[in-house]
Amino acid sequence: MPDDSLLLPDAPVLTPGQRLARGVCRHLLGHDFVTVEELVPTPGLRVDVMALGPKGEIWVVECKSSRVDYTSDRKWQGYLDWCDRFFWAVDEAFPTDLLPEGTGLIIADGYDAEILRMGPETRLAGARRKVMLQKFARHAALRAQAARDPGVSLSAWG
Amino acid sequence: MPDDSLLLPDAPVLTPGQRLARGVCRHLLGHDFVTVEELVPTPGLRVDVMALGPKGEIWVVECKSSRVDYTSDRKWQGYLDWCDRFFWAVDEAFPTDLLPEGTGLIIADGYDAEILRMGPETRLAGARRKVMLQKFARHAALRAQAARDPGVSLSAWG
Repeated sequence: MPDDSLLLPDAPVLTPGQRLARGVCRHLLGHDFVTVEELVPTPGLRVDVMALGPKGEIWVVECKSSRVDYTSDRKWQGYLDWCDRFFWAVDEAFPTDLLPEGTGLIIADGYDAEILRMGPETRLAGARRKVMLQKFARHAALRAQAARDPGVSLSAWG
Repeated sequence: MPDDSLLLPDAPVLTPGQRLARGVCRHLLGHDFVTVEELVPTPGLRVDVMALGPKGEIWVVECKSSRVDYTSDRKWQGYLDWCDRFFWAVDEAFPTDLLPEGTGLIIADGYDAEILRMGPETRLAGARRKVMLQKFARHAALRAQAARDPGVSLSAWG
């Protein structure tokens, strides 16, 4: 696999999990899902990728770069309450037998991904969907603003 | 007023209207409104700034850098259908007597802004509000993704 730091000298150094997230986000865009990273749906919980589909679908994807990364996550069932579908994203070397049944599975690298198994659908209630869409919009807009206007500090806004 | 191109050599060159938009967006953030620029609510209409408030309020701000810029805009009444409140943003030299009654007024420069007059509230119907929130979220997320991942091209997605 090519080394990003050679190809793109100005690119930020990504953690293994962030590299998976990047590939996941690229792939989901091909399904017309837009994405944000590291959204906090409720205090104490931070999702790696939240995706918004063309019909308003809300998916959560947790990116696990290693067995240890996975087994140290005690919170994953908490994510189910904040999305219509839940997926794990792992690289091709990951022992996928570890992953619980009834969850979606995406195989990813830093450049692309593939959905191997859809997570079962448990649709959000209308009120929570509305709250999540608002959170998604705010999270995305703050980051887009910071990108187009380096004079803005997000520290006060998250 | 300082010249941005001297202060920030890597900053993009903004048009006068985009400079006003930047000041407007900075100011609105102080009111806890997040913003996107150049959103297309419906084909043929592009708003300069769309803002999303903490309670889901949707505001549109059209930035006019000169009398000619204002008088050449024949579409502004079309914006009213896509927001709860509508504002003009102009610089302090703009002849504000030109502006129609019953619209909001913001005085801006490239660094900040001030709301001089609130636009009257005409609340969006629920279905349209939902559509606009979804458009806002998609627009913002695509631009945030492009900023964090230069490998993504938005050309196919707007």
